[in-house]
Amino acid sequence: MTGSPSTVRLPRGFRAAGVTAGLKASGRPDLALVVNDGPDHHGAAVFTTNRVEAAPVTWSRQVVADRRVDAVVLNSGGANACTGPQGFLDAHRTAEHVAESLGISAGDVIVCSTGLIGELLPMDIVLAGVTSAAAALTPDGHESAAVAIMTTDTVHKVAVHHGEGWSVSGMAKGAGMLAPALATMLVVLTTDAVVTAEDLDAALRAATAMSFDRIDSDACMSTNDTVVALASGASEVEVGRDELTAALTEVCADLARQLIADAEGAAHDIAIEVRSAASVDDALEVARAIARNNLFKCAIFGNDPNWGRVLAAVGTTRAAFEPAALDVSMNGVQVCRAGGVGQDRSLVDLSAREVHLLVDLHAGDETATVWTNDLTHDYVHENSAYSS
Amino acid sequence: MTGSPSTVRLPRGFRAAGVTAGLKASGRPDLALVVNDGPDHHGAAVFTTNRVEAAPVTWSRQVVADRRVDAVVLNSGGANACTGPQGFLDAHRTAEHVAESLGISAGDVIVCSTGLIGELLPMDIVLAGVTSAAAALTPDGHESAAVAIMTTDTVHKVAVHHGEGWSVSGMAKGAGMLAPALATMLVVLTTDAVVTAEDLDAALRAATAMSFDRIDSDACMSTNDTVVALASGASEVEVGRDELTAALTEVCADLARQLIADAEGAAHDIAIEVRSAASVDDALEVARAIARNNLFKCAIFGNDPNWGRVLAAVGTTRAAFEPAALDVSMNGVQVCRAGGVGQDRSLVDLSAREVHLLVDLHAGDETATVWTNDLTHDYVHENSAYSS
Repeated sequence: MTGSPSTVRLPRGFRAAGVTAGLKASGRPDLALVVNDGPDHHGAAVFTTNRVEAAPVTWSRQVVADRRVDAVVLNSGGANACTGPQGFLDAHRTAEHVAESLGISAGDVIVCSTGLIGELLPMDIVLAGVTSAAAALTPDGHESAAVAIMTTDTVHKVAVHHGEGWSVSGMAKGAGMLAPALATMLVVLTTDAVVTAEDLDAALRAATAMSFDRIDSDACMSTNDTVVALASGASEVEVGRDELTAALTEVCADLARQLIADAEGAAHDIAIEVRSAASVDDALEVARAIARNNLFKCAIFGNDPNWGRVLAAVGTTRAAFEPAALDVSMNGVQVCRAGGVGQDRSLVDLSAREVHLLVDLHAGDETATVWTNDLTHDYVHENSAYSS
Repeated sequence: MTGSPSTVRLPRGFRAAGVTAGLKASGRPDLALVVNDGPDHHGAAVFTTNRVEAAPVTWSRQVVADRRVDAVVLNSGGANACTGPQGFLDAHRTAEHVAESLGISAGDVIVCSTGLIGELLPMDIVLAGVTSAAAALTPDGHESAAVAIMTTDTVHKVAVHHGEGWSVSGMAKGAGMLAPALATMLVVLTTDAVVTAEDLDAALRAATAMSFDRIDSDACMSTNDTVVALASGASEVEVGRDELTAALTEVCADLARQLIADAEGAAHDIAIEVRSAASVDDALEVARAIARNNLFKCAIFGNDPNWGRVLAAVGTTRAAFEPAALDVSMNGVQVCRAGGVGQDRSLVDLSAREVHLLVDLHAGDETATVWTNDLTHDYVHENSAYSS
């Protein structure tokens, strides 16, 4: 089962805190710390595939290489991206300060940052925030940490899976630049299951492939995306790879949907389901081409079932299909049949927030769904007025 | 030299007309005819690479295969795309009616359509319009034909190159769905030069590669894009391939800039110049990735020199570069130097319509420039309220 935000607590073996360091002009919480007290200290992570990666990503790739992670420190209010050698030194220094505060090794501290690119972090504020967060660590700190990583998010995002005697909790931030190979987001997953480090890594990769990699709000890939999973083993319940994968996938899918539901300026959440594809890759390529088509996204904002724009997007892909075989349905109305005019487009009701677009390629047996948002005045406003 | 719109006339050997057939609810001109009276009847064309192509594109590919084209008929007010077998029959029937009206062969008549996808054309109106246009043909018809192909264009677009005793004229429509491998647009180029059909074809492909393929307003590829070139030989001046290529490129580049300047809802025209690339393909890949980044485009709309979004876009490409070597200038201010913070971003003035973004990859000697537009409230408005 997946719980509602109000019920999400840390699994056993973890403490967390969120504090106001002073990085945000708004005075809202902006620094979070999540600590794994063990007995296990397994860690896994996936990062943005953007070649222009932020300094904390470069640092954290090294940290997770040995699959031991003791703590994750996260700040909003500054991305520490495109900050040159000094940016890397600052990420390192942040990890060192966490390590000193907790009596652990800096090489086991993952660092995550989010905010404006191209500005150095005010390190005196960051380090003082780390000191405060370390002093505030508590097993009840999941919510406050989730709040402290918010940027343009309007709500904090948490999810939980309860197994028999063990659990997985997750927190996420992200409300824009949501694109495959990770949305712009920071995610921390914690579990008290007894698992191997190898299983944790494999389960995390499988879970993100089926969740965060299948949302695409605005096709823009961030420099800072990080998803971390930590396992403490404190439940003393052994969990196999399949069960762990299912649990992580459930939590990640829940968080991914929350990201789409809170995407910057969006008025519709759009599920693009591609059926009867020759391969899952084909289905994903078609779904993403539609998800990235500004004209389609504007039409949905205008409650206009403009299926021609869907076909025009499908036609840009290399997927296996015959144009004359394509069917398209919007909210259950088959507006395009066999590549031509189907049911009357005026039958489609797009007034609800959630929209279901179904494209049948008639080319095989595979299916995939990608979630995206519409393109709205508020998206343009938020992203033309807010430097991030 | 390239002339201003008011001076553009047809080269010798051509007649044209634009009429109001009644396809547009607005009552504006919506059907155009361009006829080559020879003595040569060479034709070449390039089409959208969208696999979902409109019926007139399918028809016209066959027409141009033998490199003889006697006439081009174009309608706005309906794309005749995703219209199934009936759509193809309608395109064929239109060509037949042109042929009967002019005493030529239907197999030498190119058909172009633009407008809403997924609706059959009212053929009685189309055919009556063809009859009217054939009766109105005149050597002075370039302007009226250019006006009749407009859709959401706010101005008609024409350009001319004057050689010594010969010329090239061009007309274009297009104000949205402008993307590589052709903008959404219809273009007719006419020349009275004496050239071979092979040279005309080669020159057209070279010219479009350097012009229309280097504008990308909103990354959306149309189903109907067509660029046709016709040569009459009526000047009796022989022109070689290089000179013809230069002339066509000049006219196409002029028209391409006019398309960007009139793109739906745009507030800025943005030249994205990528320098010191390892290859032209690398330069184009980087420029297009930036041109398609909604966050960057929103920032420019907001007059915000958010260079971090430029680097984030560059980082999604496979081009050869080192992130720590990237330089970015906006309107002459080097806001990013060696992948990090450069000059103060507040020095950048983005208030003018034209913006120059310069990205130096420091990876080679090649350069390319792609033109795009910003992403604005008006773009969202026009494309959520207007079915096209």
